[in-house]
Amino acid sequence: MTRVRGYFHPKTATGDASLIPPPPWRYSGDLLTVEYRTDPARVRELLPQPLELADEDPGAVALIWADWQSCAASGRELLDPVLAQYKEAFAVVRCKYDERTYTRCVYIWVDKDFAIARGLHQGYPKKLGSIHQTRPHPYGPAPRIEAGARFGATLAAADRRLAQAVVTLREPSPTNGFVNGHPMAHHRWLPSIEKGGGLALDELVESGAAAFEGGQPWVGEAELELFDAPTEELARLEIHEPIAAYYQQVGVVWDGGRLLASRVSGAQ
Amino acid sequence: MTRVRGYFHPKTATGDASLIPPPPWRYSGDLLTVEYRTDPARVRELLPQPLELADEDPGAVALIWADWQSCAASGRELLDPVLAQYKEAFAVVRCKYDERTYTRCVYIWVDKDFAIARGLHQGYPKKLGSIHQTRPHPYGPAPRIEAGARFGATLAAADRRLAQAVVTLREPSPTNGFVNGHPMAHHRWLPSIEKGGGLALDELVESGAAAFEGGQPWVGEAELELFDAPTEELARLEIHEPIAAYYQQVGVVWDGGRLLASRVSGAQ
Amino acid sequence: MTRVRGYFHPKTATGDASLIPPPPWRYSGDLLTVEYRTDPARVRELLPQPLELADEDPGAVALIWADWQSCAASGRELLDPVLAQYKEAFAVVRCKYDERTYTRCVYIWVDKDFAIARGLHQGYPKKLGSIHQTRPHPYGPAPRIEAGARFGATLAAADRRLAQAVVTLREPSPTNGFVNGHPMAHHRWLPSIEKGGGLALDELVESGAAAFEGGQPWVGEAELELFDAPTEELARLEIHEPIAAYYQQVGVVWDGGRLLASRVSGAQ
Amino acid sequence: MTRVRGYFHPKTATGDASLIPPPPWRYSGDLLTVEYRTDPARVRELLPQPLELADEDPGAVALIWADWQSCAASGRELLDPVLAQYKEAFAVVRCKYDERTYTRCVYIWVDKDFAIARGLHQGYPKKLGSIHQTRPHPYGPAPRIEAGARFGATLAAADRRLAQAVVTLREPSPTNGFVNGHPMAHHRWLPSIEKGGGLALDELVESGAAAFEGGQPWVGEAELELFDAPTEELARLEIHEPIAAYYQQVGVVWDGGRLLASRVSGAQ
Repeated sequence: MTRVRGYFHPKTATGDASLIPPPPWRYSGDLLTVEYRTDPARVRELLPQPLELADEDPGAVALIWADWQSCAASGRELLDPVLAQYKEAFAVVRCKYDERTYTRCVYIWVDKDFAIARGLHQGYPKKLGSIHQTRPHPYGPAPRIEAGARFGATLAAADRRLAQAVVTLREPSPTNGFVNGHPMAHHRWLPSIEKGGGLALDELVESGAAAFEGGQPWVGEAELELFDAPTEELARLEIHEPIAAYYQQVGVVWDGGRLLASRVSGAQ
Repeated sequence: MTRVRGYFHPKTATGDASLIPPPPWRYSGDLLTVEYRTDPARVRELLPQPLELADEDPGAVALIWADWQSCAASGRELLDPVLAQYKEAFAVVRCKYDERTYTRCVYIWVDKDFAIARGLHQGYPKKLGSIHQTRPHPYGPAPRIEAGARFGATLAAADRRLAQAVVTLREPSPTNGFVNGHPMAHHRWLPSIEKGGGLALDELVESGAAAFEGGQPWVGEAELELFDAPTEELARLEIHEPIAAYYQQVGVVWDGGRLLASRVSGAQ
Repeated sequence: MTRVRGYFHPKTATGDASLIPPPPWRYSGDLLTVEYRTDPARVRELLPQPLELADEDPGAVALIWADWQSCAASGRELLDPVLAQYKEAFAVVRCKYDERTYTRCVYIWVDKDFAIARGLHQGYPKKLGSIHQTRPHPYGPAPRIEAGARFGATLAAADRRLAQAVVTLREPSPTNGFVNGHPMAHHRWLPSIEKGGGLALDELVESGAAAFEGGQPWVGEAELELFDAPTEELARLEIHEPIAAYYQQVGVVWDGGRLLASRVSGAQ
Repeated sequence: MTRVRGYFHPKTATGDASLIPPPPWRYSGDLLTVEYRTDPARVRELLPQPLELADEDPGAVALIWADWQSCAASGRELLDPVLAQYKEAFAVVRCKYDERTYTRCVYIWVDKDFAIARGLHQGYPKKLGSIHQTRPHPYGPAPRIEAGARFGATLAAADRRLAQAVVTLREPSPTNGFVNGHPMAHHRWLPSIEKGGGLALDELVESGAAAFEGGQPWVGEAELELFDAPTEELARLEIHEPIAAYYQQVGVVWDGGRLLASRVSGAQ
């Protein structure tokens, strides 16, 4: 009687081949955040019921670039860094569920398979993309984290550029923005294997950081551009009004979440 | 009251951003297949209950390289081919469930995100890899599909080579091998979002081609090598005895499968 | 007294590490060609003296996608196909030198380092890009080479799409176009290592295929789009009038060229 | 009379498409250096005459990983960081020419085309590779630069891993090693376009940093492994005796070099 092991596929006798080890998952990285307001109707159309628009500033969007090194409990991925390093760009909005305010990731691109797998678990709607952001450095032409420093960030997928930003830092900030500041409310969806069978998995889940440490956030201005593409809808979140841009270095631990609601055999 | 659209994430008002459109999914491609026998115990350890070893030739393995162009019903992906083309390498074994023989994919690597998404739906345990196989061509130094023709095939993941083969064709064959010739029996697993919560999705599903056309298969010999890697277990399927190697060009349609068994809240 | 070996860098005791082996270089591949007319002034500005505009149809441009398998004399690269396969997209114009008409490649993108190295030798101004083109296939949804068949082709570099085309075949053609039909006239330039030192290498070279075989060319129509990018100038070759589009499968041998003119210590 | 512009190919009316702008080239980056001794005969076989083995410690090798952000005078590449960021791994030895000691890069892999182009100019024998190194970070599981910190580094090319190292820092160091501490003596070679024509370019050039700033170097121990590959010879520089390993963050400017010797029409 065989019992296979592994947190994720492929499951094997030892579990060593699992695309990802079990949480806790630990991260070191740099976050470049650009906040702006769009038409709240464009946010609402991305919120399946029972999620509703946030009461306050419902059209606020944050487009965030992150440059990560990540690992599970043992940390051994850090020493074979192709297994630890990845970059991502993602768009978050806020929403309301059961009278609480949540952050929700509506689009996200990453550049590694283990990041896709963690996203499936956490309900992030991940695709592959090509993501770049200027890194701070203490020597040479790259910027320090200081007033006047400029950081570029770009996103492409399927050989098309989808977004680009240049952020100029102005001063230290008490926060790293507000759109990405709530617990995440995500769906985990998988269609039934049977044609016309609706959803086999239809969960609303909540999660957030189990631990967090971070450096001084900086605030500044961004020039942000979004570009159309046939199979992407990021640019529908049109930029109506800039809010601000932020830079912060952080350490994060993620260690599971909570099921808010589950529905099976629902119409898809 | 919002209703989001899209077969897969991200779900939106239009569904245009969905990582994959709904089936039917259609494929044109070349299959290079290397069959060999391993220790049946190494197959058994990859078969979670209630799957059992196949009655006949239970240690047979096929390692298959495929070079695909794929699309959904409209076929428009073919005209923006970064959205249609992908390569994969995968290992299949046979197993028995409810007195029927099935094929089961135990390891698979692909090089595009839409292929990962289709695999999640179909129960293929996909990772990203770098996959190459010699293509037949009517002119110049590349091989024709004919006696004596030689095709190379390689697989790498996480910057390590995992497998390589050189196949020499001998003669036309009545079959394209036997290991990959049954309906597929796959699991669709996703852990609960809650720590220690077991599996949120634990399905055994069956699927196969809804339509198939193919050219003349050719049979020959392979030199096959498998390489160890810290986060891969393909090489545990040690090569005890070569069976044969095959080459075939095919057209396939996949259009959904059937749920064989489902268990929820199972211990993981 | 050491003598290092190898046709190209890095040179070693054995020569095995050379990025490319010596010619002859042999190619199997598919060519998708889109010909159109631009303002001849945009062609002239890319022709350094003593090259002049071609007498006839001087504004003709061909934008060509090619999907190659390549090797040197032994052919062993074909069996480790990551060393043989590459894709390219390139723009050619015609020019006149010493009363003869030549083809000249003005822009080219490839996706492998060995292709960059061969281009340095041959005078192709290669950059890295991401290149895709629909492949003909005998089964499934991919096109056959026949009337009405449609092939897509795309080019991106530095995460920006630079060009895309959809070609619809109409009928067999006596030619594969005319812009790419002459010997190539290319420059091989390398700046002096010394600041302000002009060029250390400034050669005008001619080369062409040492052997050629090909299938039936097909002609049809193309929808072609070019896109601006900050570090690219392909889109300056504006599309004023379409000519035609072509598809052909070919086998080619390249085995060296001829020095037309050399100038050293020239002002850069 | 047309005059094309651009420091490198492709040369155009504006020069904007040049793969690289003219020096000065400026760099911010992290260097992870592993020094060891090999058989001096293996170094000598890589030194074409008139280069000779260094008088002292002639078998010393440094294998160096570097994670760079780079730009030309304007610095604009830093804001579209796909044009600025690259990684490299390279092996250097020392040699003697005209009674002076030089450093010489014998193998090098990079992951961007602009880095290949700069290498052609500077005489670095660049190939494409996949290079990763752990980055220091002030928060989370990634290491700080401090006693006991561990950094991994890996190199692959053509889908094969060529080298990997794990470095453990011990203490601040007065130097960042000694093998990479001299001016560079490199060859710039290009074969004649004519078959059997020897070399069209055969220069011995010297260059070094025009400006340098750096943080505190740290020294420690490395576990280093080299792997064989059919088209690579790095592993011939066998590890006979470890010396030490180093970590340093630096800023560098490169602004041209000096021609030491030039030979034309030499037998290749």
